[in-house]
Amino acid sequence: MTENSLVEPQRGRNVLDRHLGRYAARTAGMTASEIRALFSVANRPEVVSLAGGMPNLAALPLETLSAQVAQIIAEDGLTALQYASAHGLPLLRDQICDVMALEGITAHPDDVVVTVGSQMGLDLVARLFCDPCDVVVAEGPSYVGALGSFAAYQAQVVHVAMDEYGLVPEGLRAALRRAGDAGQRVKLLYTIPNYHNPAGVTLAIERRAEILEICRTCDVLVVEDNPYGLLGFNGQIHPALRSLDPDNVVYLGSFSKTFASGLRVGWVLAPREVREKLVLAMESATLCPPTLNQVIVSRYLATHDWQGQIKMFRENYRERRDAMLSALERYLPPGCTWTKPDGGFYVWVTVPEGVDTKAMLPRAVAAQVAYASGTGFYTNGFGSRQMRLSYCYPTPERIREGVRRLAVVVRSEMDLARALGTAGPGIPVPRAPLTDLR
Amino acid sequence: MTENSLVEPQRGRNVLDRHLGRYAARTAGMTASEIRALFSVANRPEVVSLAGGMPNLAALPLETLSAQVAQIIAEDGLTALQYASAHGLPLLRDQICDVMALEGITAHPDDVVVTVGSQMGLDLVARLFCDPCDVVVAEGPSYVGALGSFAAYQAQVVHVAMDEYGLVPEGLRAALRRAGDAGQRVKLLYTIPNYHNPAGVTLAIERRAEILEICRTCDVLVVEDNPYGLLGFNGQIHPALRSLDPDNVVYLGSFSKTFASGLRVGWVLAPREVREKLVLAMESATLCPPTLNQVIVSRYLATHDWQGQIKMFRENYRERRDAMLSALERYLPPGCTWTKPDGGFYVWVTVPEGVDTKAMLPRAVAAQVAYASGTGFYTNGFGSRQMRLSYCYPTPERIREGVRRLAVVVRSEMDLARALGTAGPGIPVPRAPLTDLR
Repeated sequence: MTENSLVEPQRGRNVLDRHLGRYAARTAGMTASEIRALFSVANRPEVVSLAGGMPNLAALPLETLSAQVAQIIAEDGLTALQYASAHGLPLLRDQICDVMALEGITAHPDDVVVTVGSQMGLDLVARLFCDPCDVVVAEGPSYVGALGSFAAYQAQVVHVAMDEYGLVPEGLRAALRRAGDAGQRVKLLYTIPNYHNPAGVTLAIERRAEILEICRTCDVLVVEDNPYGLLGFNGQIHPALRSLDPDNVVYLGSFSKTFASGLRVGWVLAPREVREKLVLAMESATLCPPTLNQVIVSRYLATHDWQGQIKMFRENYRERRDAMLSALERYLPPGCTWTKPDGGFYVWVTVPEGVDTKAMLPRAVAAQVAYASGTGFYTNGFGSRQMRLSYCYPTPERIREGVRRLAVVVRSEMDLARALGTAGPGIPVPRAPLTDLR
Repeated sequence: MTENSLVEPQRGRNVLDRHLGRYAARTAGMTASEIRALFSVANRPEVVSLAGGMPNLAALPLETLSAQVAQIIAEDGLTALQYASAHGLPLLRDQICDVMALEGITAHPDDVVVTVGSQMGLDLVARLFCDPCDVVVAEGPSYVGALGSFAAYQAQVVHVAMDEYGLVPEGLRAALRRAGDAGQRVKLLYTIPNYHNPAGVTLAIERRAEILEICRTCDVLVVEDNPYGLLGFNGQIHPALRSLDPDNVVYLGSFSKTFASGLRVGWVLAPREVREKLVLAMESATLCPPTLNQVIVSRYLATHDWQGQIKMFRENYRERRDAMLSALERYLPPGCTWTKPDGGFYVWVTVPEGVDTKAMLPRAVAAQVAYASGTGFYTNGFGSRQMRLSYCYPTPERIREGVRRLAVVVRSEMDLARALGTAGPGIPVPRAPLTDLR
């Protein structure tokens, strides 16, 4: 959706940047993500976009919200439109503790910091902890916005493989060992335990304590990013990593997927000392999160059946997940595999060798379907045989049609690969052995 | 207003921070600002706070706004509550160009980036340009939030003196010369040309071109922070630095003082190449600015007499400025001097030698008046004989009463200094020769 994209080659490409010598070293790491660059194309109405991660807000009670916000401004406008604390409104921080209690978290409201979306939480955590060359361990693939923030602070991301049960503990151990042997300082494990973006898998309960133990032993702080935790399709809720090791986990939460993304209200729950630093970082980043938005969320939580609303969202996403899985089964050619998410927004698809999802993307868009190619979710060039398909936003009919179009493109790429003799084993396409998640 | 403050010594002081060895080097520079630490005390109703910079929103048309926002959510909720572009809504960027046109700025909406308050613009500019040890030249005194952001990116701030006509060009030349001689890289001049925070002075028109010329010659990018530019008490509007040198000025604007601070909507106007980097930095910082807030501002600008509203704000602030200046004249003891702002929020007061405004502050609060002591506006220990008085928020009566109480405290400090023999010339209190702004 940004204008700052590959689709505008005329503007900004041909002119020398006269400020080039002035930028900080970290700015060199700031490049347009493949996924963002694609948004402007994927937003054309004739294209079925399976690329973005926009939540489907259609189930929101707009009339009720409208009346509620009107009342907030009319009655409490002088407060709601004024600066407030960088820490976040006390009442909202209290309510956030109630939300987290669903995942087994016991927390003091003082240790919650409200942020402008959980992306800001991520960015501030990277700011607090990452010196240039520090290592952050993350799943491979991992959330593109996290990779961007770590790059912005010049940290190096080391990917650890997942399987269908999430992050592989042995892979984590090996990565930490290798980093130690190389004299690198691993600061953080960044992980999305539930309904992973983009992989769609969930960290098995029996692995959670083991991973926490590894991190504690190796003095690595765990950053648990959990925007989808309440979107389990059978109503299942997994214990948060934070609930198992309060002192060594920084937890990132968000109302973007359970209420409204455009309000940009997220939070960080952090050990107290870290929380104090986070409040200072918030002040530097934006003085305070928007007051009105916090009051809207707080009023909504206080007066609305928000858990019932989440159930509606869940059912909506489950219907779309079903549509996507059955369409994949029906249309995709043999040799393709994919994950089977039981919550969240995403399916991670692996195509046969010889097909490059990044190279295929323009042809898919020409065939009026868009996806996010896998390479954007790695910092090491992996993912060229993978793609993320989002089922969160389009209707089930559009999802089916999108997958049908995509299958045609994949088949045609496979035919081409066979004709060129590049299909099948032995092709030197970089890939992560454990990350195609069969 | 933050909990992370000096007033809570029990929490967080006595316990060792077990994460201490994990922080990035930049985190060492993150310390609670004196001004923020003071907010929780100054907010007690019995204390007249001349400390904060909260705009006075009482003149806002809350009923109209309430109806407008209700309509936005009811009719356009699915868009207004959804993610949008990191760049900012196109219509709003267009309208922002109209606002800036009042200051003589000709800009393309593409070169505007909407931020979460102009503090975020500041932070992102520091992020893009400041490597550790880079020098940022700023007025002495300067805006505390800017000093915090530069510190967060480990830049070194060099203060340049002001007089009643703002930044002194010869001082700027000398500072750049000294930095060059010391082999330092000066990246930015950070300046608040209009109704300076905290000094209350305005950069004379005849100095503007000269300062721009100095910066261009020395390859220093100018960051023009202009939240108060439309709040000149006689309706005067000065030409923005950006209007005089579009290619070498990054302009920061804000709706916090001309509309509503709690919406956190600001913007950056930057040369195109810098703007492209800013959009990427925005994505990393928060994905996108809150959509609802942008729509609210946009609708307000489109449907409301926003210039008439600014006129009301201005008259309100002028009345308060008048109350403060006449109270200072009436109550402050001889030997005190102060600036005479013709716009904005602040008066900068200098007390006689022997009085230390930082040490005096607890006694002032005990006497039920609060101010911001001058040292918080310097990175070099200067400002101990200065204080910032804000007249933006309290009523004229409260302002008069606050100044009356303050005068009692200052007199008593002067008496003490005389008794101890510390008053008068020759006392080794650090001070900037040109910055008491007589």
